[in-house]
Amino acid sequence: MFTALVMSKFLPAVLPPFLVLDPLLQGWLLEDIGRGDRTTQAIFPLGDQTHIGCAQWVAKQAGVVAGMPLAARLFNHLNDKVVFTSNVNEGQWCDSGQAIAELSGPVDALLMGERVALNLVMRLSGIATLTREFVDLINDLPTHFVDTRKTTPGLRLLEKYAAQVGGAMNHRMGLDDAVMIKDNHIAAAGGIQQAISKIRACIPYPLTIEVETENLKMVGEALECNADIIMLDNMSLPLMAQAVQLIRSKSERCKVEASGNITLKNIREVAETGVDYISSSAPVTRSHWLDISMRLQLNSFSA
Amino acid sequence: MFTALVMSKFLPAVLPPFLVLDPLLQGWLLEDIGRGDRTTQAIFPLGDQTHIGCAQWVAKQAGVVAGMPLAARLFNHLNDKVVFTSNVNEGQWCDSGQAIAELSGPVDALLMGERVALNLVMRLSGIATLTREFVDLINDLPTHFVDTRKTTPGLRLLEKYAAQVGGAMNHRMGLDDAVMIKDNHIAAAGGIQQAISKIRACIPYPLTIEVETENLKMVGEALECNADIIMLDNMSLPLMAQAVQLIRSKSERCKVEASGNITLKNIREVAETGVDYISSSAPVTRSHWLDISMRLQLNSFSA
Amino acid sequence: MFTALVMSKFLPAVLPPFLVLDPLLQGWLLEDIGRGDRTTQAIFPLGDQTHIGCAQWVAKQAGVVAGMPLAARLFNHLNDKVVFTSNVNEGQWCDSGQAIAELSGPVDALLMGERVALNLVMRLSGIATLTREFVDLINDLPTHFVDTRKTTPGLRLLEKYAAQVGGAMNHRMGLDDAVMIKDNHIAAAGGIQQAISKIRACIPYPLTIEVETENLKMVGEALECNADIIMLDNMSLPLMAQAVQLIRSKSERCKVEASGNITLKNIREVAETGVDYISSSAPVTRSHWLDISMRLQLNSFSA
Amino acid sequence: MFTALVMSKFLPAVLPPFLVLDPLLQGWLLEDIGRGDRTTQAIFPLGDQTHIGCAQWVAKQAGVVAGMPLAARLFNHLNDKVVFTSNVNEGQWCDSGQAIAELSGPVDALLMGERVALNLVMRLSGIATLTREFVDLINDLPTHFVDTRKTTPGLRLLEKYAAQVGGAMNHRMGLDDAVMIKDNHIAAAGGIQQAISKIRACIPYPLTIEVETENLKMVGEALECNADIIMLDNMSLPLMAQAVQLIRSKSERCKVEASGNITLKNIREVAETGVDYISSSAPVTRSHWLDISMRLQLNSFSA
Amino acid sequence: MFTALVMSKFLPAVLPPFLVLDPLLQGWLLEDIGRGDRTTQAIFPLGDQTHIGCAQWVAKQAGVVAGMPLAARLFNHLNDKVVFTSNVNEGQWCDSGQAIAELSGPVDALLMGERVALNLVMRLSGIATLTREFVDLINDLPTHFVDTRKTTPGLRLLEKYAAQVGGAMNHRMGLDDAVMIKDNHIAAAGGIQQAISKIRACIPYPLTIEVETENLKMVGEALECNADIIMLDNMSLPLMAQAVQLIRSKSERCKVEASGNITLKNIREVAETGVDYISSSAPVTRSHWLDISMRLQLNSFSA
Amino acid sequence: MFTALVMSKFLPAVLPPFLVLDPLLQGWLLEDIGRGDRTTQAIFPLGDQTHIGCAQWVAKQAGVVAGMPLAARLFNHLNDKVVFTSNVNEGQWCDSGQAIAELSGPVDALLMGERVALNLVMRLSGIATLTREFVDLINDLPTHFVDTRKTTPGLRLLEKYAAQVGGAMNHRMGLDDAVMIKDNHIAAAGGIQQAISKIRACIPYPLTIEVETENLKMVGEALECNADIIMLDNMSLPLMAQAVQLIRSKSERCKVEASGNITLKNIREVAETGVDYISSSAPVTRSHWLDISMRLQLNSFSA
Repeated sequence: MFTALVMSKFLPAVLPPFLVLDPLLQGWLLEDIGRGDRTTQAIFPLGDQTHIGCAQWVAKQAGVVAGMPLAARLFNHLNDKVVFTSNVNEGQWCDSGQAIAELSGPVDALLMGERVALNLVMRLSGIATLTREFVDLINDLPTHFVDTRKTTPGLRLLEKYAAQVGGAMNHRMGLDDAVMIKDNHIAAAGGIQQAISKIRACIPYPLTIEVETENLKMVGEALECNADIIMLDNMSLPLMAQAVQLIRSKSERCKVEASGNITLKNIREVAETGVDYISSSAPVTRSHWLDISMRLQLNSFSA
Repeated sequence: MFTALVMSKFLPAVLPPFLVLDPLLQGWLLEDIGRGDRTTQAIFPLGDQTHIGCAQWVAKQAGVVAGMPLAARLFNHLNDKVVFTSNVNEGQWCDSGQAIAELSGPVDALLMGERVALNLVMRLSGIATLTREFVDLINDLPTHFVDTRKTTPGLRLLEKYAAQVGGAMNHRMGLDDAVMIKDNHIAAAGGIQQAISKIRACIPYPLTIEVETENLKMVGEALECNADIIMLDNMSLPLMAQAVQLIRSKSERCKVEASGNITLKNIREVAETGVDYISSSAPVTRSHWLDISMRLQLNSFSA
Repeated sequence: MFTALVMSKFLPAVLPPFLVLDPLLQGWLLEDIGRGDRTTQAIFPLGDQTHIGCAQWVAKQAGVVAGMPLAARLFNHLNDKVVFTSNVNEGQWCDSGQAIAELSGPVDALLMGERVALNLVMRLSGIATLTREFVDLINDLPTHFVDTRKTTPGLRLLEKYAAQVGGAMNHRMGLDDAVMIKDNHIAAAGGIQQAISKIRACIPYPLTIEVETENLKMVGEALECNADIIMLDNMSLPLMAQAVQLIRSKSERCKVEASGNITLKNIREVAETGVDYISSSAPVTRSHWLDISMRLQLNSFSA
Repeated sequence: MFTALVMSKFLPAVLPPFLVLDPLLQGWLLEDIGRGDRTTQAIFPLGDQTHIGCAQWVAKQAGVVAGMPLAARLFNHLNDKVVFTSNVNEGQWCDSGQAIAELSGPVDALLMGERVALNLVMRLSGIATLTREFVDLINDLPTHFVDTRKTTPGLRLLEKYAAQVGGAMNHRMGLDDAVMIKDNHIAAAGGIQQAISKIRACIPYPLTIEVETENLKMVGEALECNADIIMLDNMSLPLMAQAVQLIRSKSERCKVEASGNITLKNIREVAETGVDYISSSAPVTRSHWLDISMRLQLNSFSA
Repeated sequence: MFTALVMSKFLPAVLPPFLVLDPLLQGWLLEDIGRGDRTTQAIFPLGDQTHIGCAQWVAKQAGVVAGMPLAARLFNHLNDKVVFTSNVNEGQWCDSGQAIAELSGPVDALLMGERVALNLVMRLSGIATLTREFVDLINDLPTHFVDTRKTTPGLRLLEKYAAQVGGAMNHRMGLDDAVMIKDNHIAAAGGIQQAISKIRACIPYPLTIEVETENLKMVGEALECNADIIMLDNMSLPLMAQAVQLIRSKSERCKVEASGNITLKNIREVAETGVDYISSSAPVTRSHWLDISMRLQLNSFSA
Repeated sequence: MFTALVMSKFLPAVLPPFLVLDPLLQGWLLEDIGRGDRTTQAIFPLGDQTHIGCAQWVAKQAGVVAGMPLAARLFNHLNDKVVFTSNVNEGQWCDSGQAIAELSGPVDALLMGERVALNLVMRLSGIATLTREFVDLINDLPTHFVDTRKTTPGLRLLEKYAAQVGGAMNHRMGLDDAVMIKDNHIAAAGGIQQAISKIRACIPYPLTIEVETENLKMVGEALECNADIIMLDNMSLPLMAQAVQLIRSKSERCKVEASGNITLKNIREVAETGVDYISSSAPVTRSHWLDISMRLQLNSFSA
């Protein structure tokens, strides 16, 4: 049904149930296959019975692997006789040249699913790899690295899964599982207090409210309104430190999140201000795909 | 129904009909909205009648803009009273700080659609921008820059559209609109000739057949079998030049495509070997999102 | 796009965007229409042009009205010329015999949509009405009445909307927007602390954690683990009072929810223990539909 | 594929094929699960392999059980290793405290599917129970108790199944499998004769036509037009008796249905007028859910 | 919403509501368009604003026209500015060379929708035409010509609509709106009586029961069991006449249907046996498409 | 996953993967089943466990069989215990009276799926049979018989599969996998050259371009523009011969297709002009369904 995975030194990552993911996975296969695989289906006209092959997935770059259970599932949507065995755990670092998975099964399914499965794992592993670089820089500090809602349309669940595999915590998953009050909401409501009061009155009661702040005055107002989380948006390091101090002095429970232009260069300094969370979209918007290729072992063919 | 766009110095880019795209666009909005926008819907409880606002999209980086008609459509799926006016043509270069679009309409729709619309345009513009860098390097040569099937699952149509906006030609769109014979197909069929013969016999007759080759012997065989396109895969520049010469001497009609590790550094040298097409996944797998943000103009509120 | 409604003395209720609801609404019409309305379509063979009529919806019982914007939308899915005007606000009390809505438009659409629209509004108004009875009993106390996940399959969003219209706050909307740790989770994890620690490590960070407790020992453990919400499940009133006292003495921020066998008879006593929230599924599982009927005004026909 | 069930003293109930029901069942699970079960999936991170458990469903009220094959199917959509064994036949009376089902399988699937499966069975059993109360009152008479089109949107098929399980016959399933001519249709057509004549001319020929009547004059007209079924709508008992007599004197084949404000108090008197069918929406609109809970047996865990 | 059409000398034909048909119509357009219309979208790159054209649909054969409202709807799914005006009523006879429709609107939509719209109307008109040939042969007799469940997968609703347009009555629309007991059902149930008794006990009560019979013995049994309709399957003309006589002598209400190998040659003789209905799949399984072509008027272009 | 089939003397036919076809197949079953099979499900109330039967499919006409793997799949969507064994290869000629398939499995599934499965195979076999008649007339010539886009809406993939089974090659599958320039495109673009130039600039580069021509002047222009395929549309035989000669004299690579009013009478003469391809929609628009019936073997019942 679902696969939950644990990494040795990192947070466990949780994949949504396949009941949720299957329509996406099937849609992605259909996007590539269209009306049929002209090449493969002509070469293997007798169907899935007679041509069985083996293959390997080989990393052509070092990085953090993410998404292997999804690759397995993709191939099985084409043919449930394909066996996809990952040689690495989700979140594990792989070296360039390392065989990260072994595949066996009907050759037509291996060839027909190759591109979609690789595309997904290469994308997710790229995100996990850059996430890990950020996380490693603050791994000894109590601050958590978190993701954002800047995700590729259609891939929200899996790009956030990849961030978790890389070592990040997830921020809210969509517009409905937490409240984030931005400047426009504040302006429209007539102030932070009015905004929070309106929102508290109609949201599901367990939901938390985060307020985006740009200066100490806004931080103070958010504190007075008992915001659950205060985001320090694009603040300078000294201002951020002041804000953290202010919040800690007034509330035991309010969480603090730093956001805006977080880079590999400045993340440690930001963490050292004492914020609880640092959010960044960089692993999604600025990562490269991890290069992986599939090698079919031809001598394994049988007719 | 659909929007086809022309760029001054580049190839025209063609968007699929909205009949094709609408299910994707709606699905992406739903992915973010989930069960409702807790923040916006609480602040604007009276619906879409009373709060009308204006906004701008501002580029925070220079680059090639792509996807603006899709942003307009996304907002209109939330509320058809939103007016989204692009200040730039698809494929036009924008500067950092430039206001690339003006929006007006119900504030709740502007806020609810903001993230998904920006995510899409930022991703597509990132692809178009890196594509343009590749294309500019060979713009005076007859060689065309083309994309690949390495695309983000679910975004094939639009990432290929973005590549076109950037100045690339599209390669095949999926497994069904052209044939690509790779080493595994050749091995399974028992040779290039056998593969082509089997495939010709059962594909729709207007489809073309491309053969992936690694050396001159394979190029020769592909030529003898009247392949429509020969891909030179990962060849050295001298070998590539020899292959081009061989193909030109034997056939007037066979097209030549270079593929494998194309970079901004080597693309011009590759083009100078005389190949017709150079394919690369780099704009998809190695581009960053173009940074764009939305600024709501608060004084435009009315109650 | 969406309709958010305000009631004079009650909390505002927020309907999900129609982008979310439309597939449900259309599915419900199709469920009834099947392959066509044999009766209506035979009587009105010339389509929607010539037979225009008026109708009223009349309450046959007193109660709280909920779901009128959905009725309007349902009719408009059949024919956008139907005008459905509610005479009452969402959440407003209506008397028996009161005309709560006026309809006009093509008669075939009025007849074809009548049953589905009434079924929905009668069901939702029934829930809102019983919710209101509970809420009225504790309206002068700070305690909130909240709903549960016991909802009719397929109607979660709208039954929770009806509860809100009736005056309740919503509890979590599903398994994904808040955590609820029950005895089985505790047992499987090896204790409350282990459960919370595992969950904190992998959920989206803004999510809150509620722990279901049956005695003071469990309450104490939950407090030590910084649970965000503690549910007192099926406790006696004295035990509940003790639990509230314990929680208040140890934490300023922890919320307390009472649950289990809440009735119109005991709700006030439960609220007087000082709990923040009282949850009950009764408005969903034990309410009757509010009886409403549609009266077509025949003299308004025109051919 | 489908499960058809027989009750000892009652009519057999027929469930639609799972090909029809599966999209509904899956949608209901997804409605609750959303983006994932935050609680369960965090506690059971290693997936469905290692934690196997047993559970019981215990009735907390006496009543008629309905929907058990659907519960089994729901769990199997999450994990096909779950075994759900009903201890009772569909339609069987259960006592308070009775264990009505045994479950075993992966604990995460048991917990993730619990709420949706219980919600469905509790709702359907509530309908079946109240239906049975009506049916028992006229069980020794030839009159059949039938349901109506007042059903919860989205649950038509299953609420009518529950009615059948309770001992009712089904009335038409939608607007397309039988004709029901109401006052508005008659007025629009210009009379009963005109209405029937128009309808006969264009419906599938095996369909039957029912006419709603309010007085003896209308009954007479319907008889003259060879209506297949005559509904006596909201008539007094004496008038109803007269109508039955009139119909029996004129036609051997015409069926008679009584409708309107049928209660447990008056159903026997109505039946004694000699009508063939008595229809009522009460089991749908005025029943309470049958209370059932799931008890996980914790000592059965294994790691 | 829906279009119901009347033919002068024939039965009115009723189209299902567009709420039912739209998913089909959209799916058929997408089937042809795939990822985009390569030809049209390249020629008309500026979208739907600048190229407006006119076209005619010209019948290249004489026949009965059916499906024109569907053609209009198809074009409007591509572009709601297309105006499609039928020059003929549904069911009207057209001559070879007759202009049966005028179209105007964006040229790209006209070209992109042409093939699908013509395919549908040509198919439906072919069915209507052959249906009319059958109907005309028995038009002065009381017997009705009816269709069957032998319809092209996916086109059931529309092929039965075309039959109605041609002058047929519809038989049941699917397995669920009437009962048909065939030899296999009888054998499995242990006889006609057992079959009818089992079925009566669990079907929606307004449904009718038809029994397929092959000889007078079976006819007699069906009569005794009060079958609503008796089908005389593949009987010789004399046997059929005997069966009709038997049925008429025993029952006033039982309908008689002749079935099996009905041709244009024998239909009148069959009708003269006095059966109420004659069913045949020939209009679906043995008709040719009515040839129609679209002529774009080029001088009407504007840039 | 998919089934590719080989015929002895004909081209191999390739079925799209079931991932593509399953939604179609399921939709077709649901179209017939609606809310349930009233007849079968009442007779077999105990579900799929106890009534196992055998059946045969018997051809009642001679012809070419096509679609048997689809019939098997349809039955398995109802019940995976049904075993459907084809006695003939796809494309094999069957005689009248021949048992072409053996079925065994739960009787209810056999009866519930019978009509849809037969409808599909009868339709596809009818197409294959008429295709074969055309193909046989030119089997000794190098010319290929090809299909068109005139296909029944919703059946494009399978009617083209049936054409292939009958011995045809497929033409393009939709508007997106090849370019076809018709007179309207030429007129709108301002000439053949302008049309081809615009199209070449924006289509995926491997796609081929076909030009529809009516006279030698157009053929000449198409040749000059390097059209990949030239269609000779409705030309007289002498003109066609001249056109072929012209094309062969100017180009080695350009393919020639004849189209328009191809009949069994004239196809050989057309082929003898030397064209490469002859396209015709006749097998789709003018074929009759191949008559096949299912015979259930009653003695095989078991209770």
